[in-house]
Amino acid sequence: MQQYIPDFNSWGKPKHECGICGIFGHEDAAKLTYFGLYALQHRGQESAGIVAGNGERIAIHKDMGLVPEVFSERILQRLSGHLAVGHVRYSTTGESNIINTQPFMVTHKGEPLVVAHNGNLVNSIDLRRHLEAKGSIFQTTMDSEIVLHLLARTMEMGIERAIKESFACIRGAYSLLLMTRDTMIAVRDPNGFRPLCLGRLDNGGWVVASETCALDLIEARYERDIEPGEVVVIDKDGPRSIFPWPPHRKSFCIFEHVYFARPDSDVFGINVYQTRKRMGEILAREAKIEADFVMPFPDSGNYAAIGYSQASGIPLEMGMIRNHYVGRTFIQPTQSMRDFSVRVKLNPVRHLLKDKRVIIVEDSIIRGTTGRSRIRSLRNVGAREIHMLVSCPPTAHACYYGIDFPSSSELIAATHSIEGIRDYLGLDSLSYLSLDGMVEATGLDRNSFCLACFDGKYPISPDKSFNKDALGGCGC
Amino acid sequence: MQQYIPDFNSWGKPKHECGICGIFGHEDAAKLTYFGLYALQHRGQESAGIVAGNGERIAIHKDMGLVPEVFSERILQRLSGHLAVGHVRYSTTGESNIINTQPFMVTHKGEPLVVAHNGNLVNSIDLRRHLEAKGSIFQTTMDSEIVLHLLARTMEMGIERAIKESFACIRGAYSLLLMTRDTMIAVRDPNGFRPLCLGRLDNGGWVVASETCALDLIEARYERDIEPGEVVVIDKDGPRSIFPWPPHRKSFCIFEHVYFARPDSDVFGINVYQTRKRMGEILAREAKIEADFVMPFPDSGNYAAIGYSQASGIPLEMGMIRNHYVGRTFIQPTQSMRDFSVRVKLNPVRHLLKDKRVIIVEDSIIRGTTGRSRIRSLRNVGAREIHMLVSCPPTAHACYYGIDFPSSSELIAATHSIEGIRDYLGLDSLSYLSLDGMVEATGLDRNSFCLACFDGKYPISPDKSFNKDALGGCGC
Amino acid sequence: MQQYIPDFNSWGKPKHECGICGIFGHEDAAKLTYFGLYALQHRGQESAGIVAGNGERIAIHKDMGLVPEVFSERILQRLSGHLAVGHVRYSTTGESNIINTQPFMVTHKGEPLVVAHNGNLVNSIDLRRHLEAKGSIFQTTMDSEIVLHLLARTMEMGIERAIKESFACIRGAYSLLLMTRDTMIAVRDPNGFRPLCLGRLDNGGWVVASETCALDLIEARYERDIEPGEVVVIDKDGPRSIFPWPPHRKSFCIFEHVYFARPDSDVFGINVYQTRKRMGEILAREAKIEADFVMPFPDSGNYAAIGYSQASGIPLEMGMIRNHYVGRTFIQPTQSMRDFSVRVKLNPVRHLLKDKRVIIVEDSIIRGTTGRSRIRSLRNVGAREIHMLVSCPPTAHACYYGIDFPSSSELIAATHSIEGIRDYLGLDSLSYLSLDGMVEATGLDRNSFCLACFDGKYPISPDKSFNKDALGGCGC
Amino acid sequence: MQQYIPDFNSWGKPKHECGICGIFGHEDAAKLTYFGLYALQHRGQESAGIVAGNGERIAIHKDMGLVPEVFSERILQRLSGHLAVGHVRYSTTGESNIINTQPFMVTHKGEPLVVAHNGNLVNSIDLRRHLEAKGSIFQTTMDSEIVLHLLARTMEMGIERAIKESFACIRGAYSLLLMTRDTMIAVRDPNGFRPLCLGRLDNGGWVVASETCALDLIEARYERDIEPGEVVVIDKDGPRSIFPWPPHRKSFCIFEHVYFARPDSDVFGINVYQTRKRMGEILAREAKIEADFVMPFPDSGNYAAIGYSQASGIPLEMGMIRNHYVGRTFIQPTQSMRDFSVRVKLNPVRHLLKDKRVIIVEDSIIRGTTGRSRIRSLRNVGAREIHMLVSCPPTAHACYYGIDFPSSSELIAATHSIEGIRDYLGLDSLSYLSLDGMVEATGLDRNSFCLACFDGKYPISPDKSFNKDALGGCGC
Repeated sequence: MQQYIPDFNSWGKPKHECGICGIFGHEDAAKLTYFGLYALQHRGQESAGIVAGNGERIAIHKDMGLVPEVFSERILQRLSGHLAVGHVRYSTTGESNIINTQPFMVTHKGEPLVVAHNGNLVNSIDLRRHLEAKGSIFQTTMDSEIVLHLLARTMEMGIERAIKESFACIRGAYSLLLMTRDTMIAVRDPNGFRPLCLGRLDNGGWVVASETCALDLIEARYERDIEPGEVVVIDKDGPRSIFPWPPHRKSFCIFEHVYFARPDSDVFGINVYQTRKRMGEILAREAKIEADFVMPFPDSGNYAAIGYSQASGIPLEMGMIRNHYVGRTFIQPTQSMRDFSVRVKLNPVRHLLKDKRVIIVEDSIIRGTTGRSRIRSLRNVGAREIHMLVSCPPTAHACYYGIDFPSSSELIAATHSIEGIRDYLGLDSLSYLSLDGMVEATGLDRNSFCLACFDGKYPISPDKSFNKDALGGCGC
Repeated sequence: MQQYIPDFNSWGKPKHECGICGIFGHEDAAKLTYFGLYALQHRGQESAGIVAGNGERIAIHKDMGLVPEVFSERILQRLSGHLAVGHVRYSTTGESNIINTQPFMVTHKGEPLVVAHNGNLVNSIDLRRHLEAKGSIFQTTMDSEIVLHLLARTMEMGIERAIKESFACIRGAYSLLLMTRDTMIAVRDPNGFRPLCLGRLDNGGWVVASETCALDLIEARYERDIEPGEVVVIDKDGPRSIFPWPPHRKSFCIFEHVYFARPDSDVFGINVYQTRKRMGEILAREAKIEADFVMPFPDSGNYAAIGYSQASGIPLEMGMIRNHYVGRTFIQPTQSMRDFSVRVKLNPVRHLLKDKRVIIVEDSIIRGTTGRSRIRSLRNVGAREIHMLVSCPPTAHACYYGIDFPSSSELIAATHSIEGIRDYLGLDSLSYLSLDGMVEATGLDRNSFCLACFDGKYPISPDKSFNKDALGGCGC
Repeated sequence: MQQYIPDFNSWGKPKHECGICGIFGHEDAAKLTYFGLYALQHRGQESAGIVAGNGERIAIHKDMGLVPEVFSERILQRLSGHLAVGHVRYSTTGESNIINTQPFMVTHKGEPLVVAHNGNLVNSIDLRRHLEAKGSIFQTTMDSEIVLHLLARTMEMGIERAIKESFACIRGAYSLLLMTRDTMIAVRDPNGFRPLCLGRLDNGGWVVASETCALDLIEARYERDIEPGEVVVIDKDGPRSIFPWPPHRKSFCIFEHVYFARPDSDVFGINVYQTRKRMGEILAREAKIEADFVMPFPDSGNYAAIGYSQASGIPLEMGMIRNHYVGRTFIQPTQSMRDFSVRVKLNPVRHLLKDKRVIIVEDSIIRGTTGRSRIRSLRNVGAREIHMLVSCPPTAHACYYGIDFPSSSELIAATHSIEGIRDYLGLDSLSYLSLDGMVEATGLDRNSFCLACFDGKYPISPDKSFNKDALGGCGC
Repeated sequence: MQQYIPDFNSWGKPKHECGICGIFGHEDAAKLTYFGLYALQHRGQESAGIVAGNGERIAIHKDMGLVPEVFSERILQRLSGHLAVGHVRYSTTGESNIINTQPFMVTHKGEPLVVAHNGNLVNSIDLRRHLEAKGSIFQTTMDSEIVLHLLARTMEMGIERAIKESFACIRGAYSLLLMTRDTMIAVRDPNGFRPLCLGRLDNGGWVVASETCALDLIEARYERDIEPGEVVVIDKDGPRSIFPWPPHRKSFCIFEHVYFARPDSDVFGINVYQTRKRMGEILAREAKIEADFVMPFPDSGNYAAIGYSQASGIPLEMGMIRNHYVGRTFIQPTQSMRDFSVRVKLNPVRHLLKDKRVIIVEDSIIRGTTGRSRIRSLRNVGAREIHMLVSCPPTAHACYYGIDFPSSSELIAATHSIEGIRDYLGLDSLSYLSLDGMVEATGLDRNSFCLACFDGKYPISPDKSFNKDALGGCGC
């Protein structure tokens, strides 16, 4: 058991989520899963794990750390077999907790049952109470353990029926992979909060992954998204699709497009790079500003900044340079180094900024603390005017479906007016993309999305009793 | 980075011996537990763990490795509180398995429940089947998980009643510590197979430990043994003793005295050093041999060899010298190094042995492979006659109560006559202590002991269905 | 556990680029040096080291690895004092070699003498032979050891005179820091091949560093560049400048601007970002191409690509996305993953590239192997036309002054025509920036630069005997 | 570079010394050297290193740590060749210092020159000054570096002549191995302070080692000791013996027999076990005491205690039990654990000691601190009378020849009378073996030994200027 140490790369942004990847039908299933997780590392940097099997034997390895830290060639060799399921995870506790790593594996009547889960259940407290009243005991604080308890109690009906019955009790977001001794099963909740896609390997094997960038790295062909409410059972006869529950309204998480997913991924059938670029273009239509140049905070703001620049005609510059070697540093700066927390990651280019009017295009503002420091550091090298454009509306509401926003009290847009935020950040002006503009950029219908973090309309009402701190088990 | 790759096919291999230690009522409870485990390291070298609490918060740390490898000063500081329970464990699989480390902690209705267990249940398969039929799922292969499932199902009656009911279902050997948020509970099975003692700290706090050597290191005063069938509940009001089950016949494990416990410990109320020395004395009465000197294989044979030497008048020498720095070496010797496996640990003193008639006093012979190599290495330096005296009778029967004997087929005394063993080992003569002599050395009544590994009379009949390989979870 | 296995047959392989940083007059000198090295990590990733002193005691710590891997808070605390010198190093051998790490410290007549060196001597073989004839012995393959031997033999004249005499024997590139018990001395060779700058801390202390980005991170004020041929002695009386040798023609390494330095640094008095952007602008003047968009290989090509896009009016896109979590992976891909070596670092954005005509602006082409894979990976996602513009002329000549180019036979421009390179890379067209255009972009006079890697005119002729493989110690 | 952390095993005893082992003429030379060092680990636990060569290539690996920590199978495979030289080292600085690890390798005119040294020079300050005046620079504080400087300056005469000339300047103790590209050379100083022996492998290869226990482990046959003043050159023609210097009086270190060497080794041609046992026998003749039993502090006192018991007729017991798992613990005990420093290593057997009169036979008393704690801990469990017999005379004088005694001011026998020591230790009585008795036990002539630590008569006068703290280079 090892301790998790936060790194500078994730300061101030919504951390977390999870990423999942599974392979069926390739002799190097664990290795392909490893690379799939490698491509999904941005979805979770706290722990990583893979379960692999050959239809008889099953083996697991998981630990705290990044994917390449957790696995070695030797370990992957021991994870032999044609079937593998992997998981990367970020959790908010700050407390190391190897017990909460995934995939999560139990045995029931001599049979292994594995889950790897991305998302968040909203009725986990009730479910847990209910299960404990029936005698269940819990070792972890993860939703996933609840899923396995429910399945175990219904497994005698067969796995498909067990899934139908078990998930009928569950409310919330879950894109997950189940694995038995010889079968891999992908389940996406009826709202489809989190993405999940199906791909095909050249040798005929199958891949399920959170994002298409995982398919790209292992050179799998994208087949299609797993549908909301769909269960795909993959065994030696190939994939078999079932829809055990009545259809719901779709609730795709728009924040995947705003910030979370990789720009080279297609998410909900749309390329993320292009959505972000269009967000910048629409921003240029909605917010006209005079400036010498437009710049992103690299890399997350790059794509909307490009869109803004092209649509507005204002030239793009990279006003801050990333230190490519920034990692997990534990050395405290000296007192004199006031801008350290910014500069260790992004250093302003003095000659570019001095006496200039600049527009920063930023993907989102969560707490505002990081942005504030960066603005100050730009002022310190002589920027004359600093305007900020945000390529989404103000994020004023907590997420109960698997993105680790801070609680509302820490969301700056929940407690401050736009003018108040502008003042806090030290900007000359601040504008946000409209909700309509953001949806328009995706090209999909507004009703396809969960927009709750922006408009507070929750597709599934969170438990009245919902209280993140009290919940001994939210997890993802 | 820790790795756990449970092998479903190796599940159920006898895991053996453990050591437990718990502290109630000292501000440095975790640190004292650490040192208690340090003194008990000989009882288990595979993994170590400590759970500590302050009546409100509870924290756990456990990992594969020796006690000083698993814990650091910093980790112990985080295990704060006046209450702590620790465990060291040995398993024979050779497979690391962090999931099977102890103490084992779950939550039930928001309350933590912890177990640290030394021993082995004989009806765990039945119990597990029964619990799975009721919906329980299992993550480990340990008996301890069964204990917690049983307790969880009865906890609403209160912990004392829950213990009474739960353990009424359980058959086998268990000296264990339970811990709730504010209470430590010691439980010893009605037969009292494994030792467990109670001690007192200078500041008024309480200690429970497998052996008294743990009390010595932390300078606690030995109070008394926990009785067979006794439950001692220790909370802020001090210890409270209950005997929930009808009395059984005692079945103290005599092998603790023969080999397993530390010679400086008192076990079952008797000092182990003195028992072993008396075994040597009685051997001298039973087996008279002419020789130039008597020698042990250090250090386990030292005490019986001293007894033999004093009673027989034959001088004692240390014919083989331990390499104090021998550790875990993974370097294979070269082909020419035929005696490597012996000499890396024990090197014969050539000048002492050349042309001499020697008696080796050995504590026990299990498989005989190590002894055979050692005898050959003594021959190679010129010993003229080599006689061996064993300070217990032939060990011909498996143990189902927590000592990791190999299966009967691997016990050399189960498959060979004494003459056959002598021949295999390459000895001039071989004699064993009689069963009566061994019991006499302890000073206790023969009926106090489980002698099953010597006489095959099992105090609790192992399950008819008992099959070590099939058992999906025996644990220690 | 560190390993150093020098291979006598590989001695003398060109070791390349280093970064140096020193602090005089700040109580946290070692910590500031640490952060300075952190900012200079791009100049060397193989090893790192810091020597620190308080005028009396002196301490050193150095090891293989990145700066944050080599140092901890605890180690920095032990490196106490107001004076510190640090070094980061890259070598190409792939062989770790802790003996060759820097700073390099010896004692002479009880006094410590330290060197941290960036550059490469061209007469090191002769010097070494000469010194060995006089009885010197060598432990490393570094030029720096030669420097110390020369200094030791003249130190009785006083350090300033010793520097004058010693460096008079030395030919080549050296920007270096020397340190005695109470003094820090910066030396830049008379040609000024490698950069070196002087900065000032708020508290009055002094900084010397390879690039200004190190000053930025520790919030030091840039004072001026150390001049070619200048020696700056910094002690309690502040800095004192001497010019011990007759003036030479300047020979600034233009490759620092082309590729090596960080874009946020000012090098030779000019901002690197702006030079690179102007290179792109001049490319647009020199090479006109029709295309749908222009893209860099991020991040090194970003700045010239921006310049090209702005000057040509062709929009900029980020056609390949960096995996931010790519690290040192040792896992071999499976056979089916043909584009792995590209995609693990840069993944093409399929939707952006499909059926498009694209221009790639690249900073330089050395071997061409990486570029070739990247082009193929762009073709694989459907790019219709791929043109490449390189923001410098063909690099056809080896560097003897501290940049680790491969030998001429591996430089693709030394063995292929431009058409041949285009064909090898699989491009539709390929153009290079002219030598004049490259120099123009810097705004400095052509005579200020060493352009040898482009035009083969070496400012200091390498030894006739110069033979990289025979050289028993070039180092950096 | 890593930090050295002292461990509990070496409290209070003279630490240090070094051990050396070399192999010529076996394809697994490095592996055999590894096992040789493994057997010599008691001679130095701070660092370990091996240089290996095949006549052309040469490779080195060394690091802080125990032998099995420093080497892995993979590393040994890379140390290929038929020729290898290894070293284990303990140093007194307390400061980690990988630079000071051995073997020490330099190149001179393209040729490698390696030294591995056990001993201590007494004129190293003068030599160093002399060499520095001639321009030599030093990187380490080791005598061995001086040896290499001297050799380098004379190598042109050929290695044998160079050895003759170089060592003619050197005064002190040196048993060392030199290695060139294709030759191994053993050198023992004319006094023969430290042991060095020659052995033969079954395949015809040759071994040189500090003690015969290294030969035993690798199953080499002991041939003979290297003589005082002898140089043995081993190359493809086998060993060739030369005696370059006029004969001296022998000065074998008797402390090797008293404490330092392993009891299973033959040192100076005599078995150490038997010497120690005879010391106990002679003690019984010199010091008669009434007691219930005699006991050692295991294991170093075991052999003299056996001798004493047999000669006196007083029975032997093991009154304190070693914790076999004691290692390097960094956890501080709690305040209440007053006897911790003793009990963590040796726990008294209460039942044995209570109300008894005991004689402790101890090999030597250096500072007395450890002994004092142990006596107190025996009192605490109820020993009635405690007498101590020491199997050597009082050690009242510093060692300048390679054993790390504390300075005289810390040697308790230098500052206290025997009565004063008895009082300090808390004993009922204390007697030492006489000088004559000690020498008699070895069976050799008194003139064969250096007895300086006992009688203050130094065979080679240490420098007037000798001051351990000022000496920038004592090493071993």
